[in-house]
Amino acid sequence: MSRVRAKPLHGDKTVTQPRRAVVREVGLRDGLQSISTVLPTARKKEWIRDAHAAGQREIEVGSFVPARLLPQLADTAELVAYAKTLPGLVVSVLVPNLRGAESAIDAQADVMLVPLSASHAHSLANLRRTPDEVVAEVAKMRALRDAAGSKTLIEGGVGTAFGCTLQGEVAAVEVLRCMQALLDAGADRVSLADTVGYANPAAVLRLFEQARAIAGERLCCGHFHDTRGLALANVYAALQTGVDRFDATLAGIGGCPHAPGASGNAASEDLAFLLEDMGIATGIDLHRLLALRHKVAAWLQGEVLHGTLWRAGLPKTFAPTA
Amino acid sequence: MSRVRAKPLHGDKTVTQPRRAVVREVGLRDGLQSISTVLPTARKKEWIRDAHAAGQREIEVGSFVPARLLPQLADTAELVAYAKTLPGLVVSVLVPNLRGAESAIDAQADVMLVPLSASHAHSLANLRRTPDEVVAEVAKMRALRDAAGSKTLIEGGVGTAFGCTLQGEVAAVEVLRCMQALLDAGADRVSLADTVGYANPAAVLRLFEQARAIAGERLCCGHFHDTRGLALANVYAALQTGVDRFDATLAGIGGCPHAPGASGNAASEDLAFLLEDMGIATGIDLHRLLALRHKVAAWLQGEVLHGTLWRAGLPKTFAPTA
Repeated sequence: MSRVRAKPLHGDKTVTQPRRAVVREVGLRDGLQSISTVLPTARKKEWIRDAHAAGQREIEVGSFVPARLLPQLADTAELVAYAKTLPGLVVSVLVPNLRGAESAIDAQADVMLVPLSASHAHSLANLRRTPDEVVAEVAKMRALRDAAGSKTLIEGGVGTAFGCTLQGEVAAVEVLRCMQALLDAGADRVSLADTVGYANPAAVLRLFEQARAIAGERLCCGHFHDTRGLALANVYAALQTGVDRFDATLAGIGGCPHAPGASGNAASEDLAFLLEDMGIATGIDLHRLLALRHKVAAWLQGEVLHGTLWRAGLPKTFAPTA
Repeated sequence: MSRVRAKPLHGDKTVTQPRRAVVREVGLRDGLQSISTVLPTARKKEWIRDAHAAGQREIEVGSFVPARLLPQLADTAELVAYAKTLPGLVVSVLVPNLRGAESAIDAQADVMLVPLSASHAHSLANLRRTPDEVVAEVAKMRALRDAAGSKTLIEGGVGTAFGCTLQGEVAAVEVLRCMQALLDAGADRVSLADTVGYANPAAVLRLFEQARAIAGERLCCGHFHDTRGLALANVYAALQTGVDRFDATLAGIGGCPHAPGASGNAASEDLAFLLEDMGIATGIDLHRLLALRHKVAAWLQGEVLHGTLWRAGLPKTFAPTA
């Protein structure tokens, strides 16, 4: 990962920031699974195609969960197959268990994201397993993947990393223990998620710094919800620790089951603007991404959408980063 | 200003943040001047009273401009008199010219904020003066203030510090020149404003660092508009340069004349949450501030309001900073 010394801080210090960063689109998974509109497969393909045309190179297209649980994501295999026809696109899927991993490997997804909740209460409520049971499942996924000679990367996503609406506090030491356990079990890389919008920039700086000390470059992504308006401030803090990949959903779709009407993830278009405007290249053409947002917003009429750039437009002074 | 070393960064570095910070409420001025609802004086007093009861200790109550230009702020003198009856409240007003300064001195406002636009185009369009003409006016204000034996502080607010919707780029060197000229002309302190929402955290860090090198502790405040969703990220960046006062408007009212429906300033309640949650004391009781937001929102029915905390609520883990 290349870095550039960005600007002097306090005279004698500097803050580093990556030269490039990835806005990983998770709207088709984290977004669509949380809203009531069911998007037809043809429109999902159009979304993926347009996002790719706008320069997005990593997209989570769905989740291999039983269709009876999330019927809106039942077309995941077809979407993986379609997405893999687009040049240079890294196609990821969420898999909650070994059966999902099998599907991901069969579909030849580039990345499978395995969620683990560091909050035991949240883990039992949402995944019906303890964190350590998820770790054991990851070990089996790794064995399966290796036995199949598959190239699908396993990413362990540690959620509720900054607190939990059920349990309250989630100790950093437990978050880091889970992360280490995922790596030990064979995850190729790990990410940290503020699942419920409890993080603040100081907490992000602290936890990502500690996580990085353990995982190094294998700490690959930050996933921030904008429930309390801090997603972009949290991204900025995480950037200072060297993280260079962030999940986001177009128009901030997704919401939060615990806060009706609240934002979902960071809005992809706002995040891309933040990065590009700070001189961090994303490869994204913001005009095309805003055009896609406009299209998707029309498809999702009646849903609460978020984000700010679509309304304000780009600054007169804006120039994309090369 | 006391500082605390907050947490390790990159192992060998630390990021400092102030122990305390001020959320200066400018909703009664910057907010109300930009929306169509005219709030009756009695309600403005109730707002000021409740904000004070919620722990806010700095409030910009209005502007001494001709009533024909801003009829919604015509009661500024009465509001200053009322606000000064509340113990420990620092009462500020905006003054565009010498006549306004005279009114502020007569009213015994604690602070008068003199806006200067570093963009020549914006300065001519909004203030009908060049930046240097504003500087000359500040020198007269200082003479007037000193001759009157008044204690009213003069704050020079350098606006369009990160760019301008009319002119585009505003050179940092010109922003800093204007700031220095204000200090030389007798301003007691200065602040920097992203009037049109063009700032990003990297630009904030750079400019505030440079400004602080010139003005030291006399650089007293950051004023960020949330037009593109970056106000809180920008506050977080400015905090790292040691700034410990930020303007904000309750419910983010204010908007942007160049972007219909866009946010105004950072929302006071979201900003206070950001600070308190990071361990920076504001003296604000967030429950009381949210109750006030609820009340003001009812008064401003039909206006576009902003902010996120009111909807999501405080995290289960939240504890105010002592």
